[in-house]
Amino acid sequence: MRAPTTATLARRHGRVGQALDSLGLDALVVVAPTNIRYLTNHAGSAGTLVMTRDAAHLIIDFRYQESVRARQDSAAACPSLQTWPVPSSYDEVLLDCLDRTGVSTVGFEAAHLTVARHDWLVRTIAARSLGVALRPTERIVEQARIVKDADELTIIREAAARITAVAEAGFRGVRRGTTERAVAGMLEAAIRDAGYERLAFDTIVASGPNAALPHYRAGDRVFASGDLVVLDFGGVLDGYCCDLTRTVCVERPSAEARRVYDAVLEAQQAAIAAVRPGVLASDVDGAARRVLAGHGLGEAFGHGTGHGLGLDVHEEPRIARHRLDSPAVPLEPGMVFTIEPGAYLAGWGGVRIEDDVLVTESGGEVLTAVVRDLQVLGD
Amino acid sequence: MRAPTTATLARRHGRVGQALDSLGLDALVVVAPTNIRYLTNHAGSAGTLVMTRDAAHLIIDFRYQESVRARQDSAAACPSLQTWPVPSSYDEVLLDCLDRTGVSTVGFEAAHLTVARHDWLVRTIAARSLGVALRPTERIVEQARIVKDADELTIIREAAARITAVAEAGFRGVRRGTTERAVAGMLEAAIRDAGYERLAFDTIVASGPNAALPHYRAGDRVFASGDLVVLDFGGVLDGYCCDLTRTVCVERPSAEARRVYDAVLEAQQAAIAAVRPGVLASDVDGAARRVLAGHGLGEAFGHGTGHGLGLDVHEEPRIARHRLDSPAVPLEPGMVFTIEPGAYLAGWGGVRIEDDVLVTESGGEVLTAVVRDLQVLGD
Repeated sequence: MRAPTTATLARRHGRVGQALDSLGLDALVVVAPTNIRYLTNHAGSAGTLVMTRDAAHLIIDFRYQESVRARQDSAAACPSLQTWPVPSSYDEVLLDCLDRTGVSTVGFEAAHLTVARHDWLVRTIAARSLGVALRPTERIVEQARIVKDADELTIIREAAARITAVAEAGFRGVRRGTTERAVAGMLEAAIRDAGYERLAFDTIVASGPNAALPHYRAGDRVFASGDLVVLDFGGVLDGYCCDLTRTVCVERPSAEARRVYDAVLEAQQAAIAAVRPGVLASDVDGAARRVLAGHGLGEAFGHGTGHGLGLDVHEEPRIARHRLDSPAVPLEPGMVFTIEPGAYLAGWGGVRIEDDVLVTESGGEVLTAVVRDLQVLGD
Repeated sequence: MRAPTTATLARRHGRVGQALDSLGLDALVVVAPTNIRYLTNHAGSAGTLVMTRDAAHLIIDFRYQESVRARQDSAAACPSLQTWPVPSSYDEVLLDCLDRTGVSTVGFEAAHLTVARHDWLVRTIAARSLGVALRPTERIVEQARIVKDADELTIIREAAARITAVAEAGFRGVRRGTTERAVAGMLEAAIRDAGYERLAFDTIVASGPNAALPHYRAGDRVFASGDLVVLDFGGVLDGYCCDLTRTVCVERPSAEARRVYDAVLEAQQAAIAAVRPGVLASDVDGAARRVLAGHGLGEAFGHGTGHGLGLDVHEEPRIARHRLDSPAVPLEPGMVFTIEPGAYLAGWGGVRIEDDVLVTESGGEVLTAVVRDLQVLGD
């Protein structure tokens, strides 16, 4: 297990400290599990973290005490960690922690805390006359996570490198007569064999008309000659996600299948070529969208061109049309995201081609090295 | 794919309608994905649902239009469905839907809606002078889901029946010299082979001292003679989760391993025997806890005895100690939950034994039929 080091965590804590300063906050309550992991290396599905200027207060129940204790004796120890055991209610311990650390103006993650938890905290603070005021915050940890540090890039490069063997296992499975479900099983066994700890998301194997459904998973359909088959899969290595899509053909591609495939590949290459520091994420999306529109496939491409990749399989930056209600995102070195344009034609099928790209000082580096030409299989 | 029928969905809508009446609400905004699935059969990871007295308004983006349209021509069609496409922002369409359907007092799911979404909705409703007031609600759909209907029980029985072959595949993999990760791979391949659409949760294979960590997953540890190995795994069939744990031994169990195993098994049997309508969930928990305490293992059992099982792998009812801040839960026929006491001894290892149980008119029916005596493997 490669885990970010104590020094790396200390730098991340420093960024949170700066955000607290600039917002006039004494502490930040972190509830999103991947944000907690980013700041502590604690990977449990439960936990609440209170970041103050001088300590990381981790509130965890019985199930996680032992693993946290063991990690504190390693190179991945969380600096200035204090653990708070939970006998019964997380939020009771949270209030106790806020009270005993003496903080008064406390930010929380508005995009993750639920209304029910928030209302209980506010009501109980008032009823007990605790001197704590809660303030909504937006994207404090997410903003730090959007540019990957060296510890993360080491893991992400390795996660991307290992996907090649998984793709090849999938290609070997596709032939006339096998089913979507069988190929999904082969991909998932290969993900495990490659050393990923789990799937990054539910594997998609969508053949023939099913390929027109961008979020189809895998069913009992038997592959037929001429089918396009979308394979979309990924693994998690030491917490970090890899996400790849290839569209392959069973035996003989039709002229229309070749035409749509070539258009999507051209769009993908145009988007990758557009990646460099300072370019807006929406312009990378626009590069893909223009190519598809030029081939009469603008309406067939209904989703965004890509999404950030890290501890979450969908994170910032979104590579999509600019939305009036959100700020433009200029690319920066260290950002990692997918580039995955597609074309979906109801009743006929679809094509999607996806790679994972790192923004470097001078452009975009494709981290996933899997053959990109249309693979004609089982012939 | 077995999916609840239109008639079943209509009955579920009727229950939501009754809740709206009793709370004086015109509509309920449903945001939890499994609650949306329960009411519409839509299984996407995104979507927002507005239930009014006479219609189910489903707000979905491009990715899901085609699959929803196809389902509406089947026996699993959602009654009185109206779909609202999302060009860009879900919450813009949500406000448009509330405005155009003319509802005024609107409940939302406080345990699922985030503070950020709620604040944006409240601010925008005020800025646009829309005649809508939002009211927090608790557990309206969860309360309906806690007792399974006949369509659900058909699927849940089948999901539980199929786990036997998966457990046997895991047992075949455990022997001196193989690794946790390899056995996790065998379990996951068997889950796929058994026809489950995905894993219900990350597979746990915890051997030797790792078995003392209730939420360990699977690593590179090589099994040694005398190891206890906790195998905890499950699959999702047509949306419904199955969850099973067995603890097995490599070659020769120590006297202590037998002693702890027998105590946990006795606790599990006591809890299962306690299940019947009218008994409190906390009393089932107490039955397991008393047995373990009697064996000096009370402190070694730090989690609850079980959790409800359905569209979510953790749902109501919790089979745990009674908490002063929540109402007691008397069991009712049709409830389905796990019974999974354990004992964890830091540095030594642990034991957990878990089955899935249905409350019948007269007691508890164990749905998972996997051998429960200590399996001594690789000998």
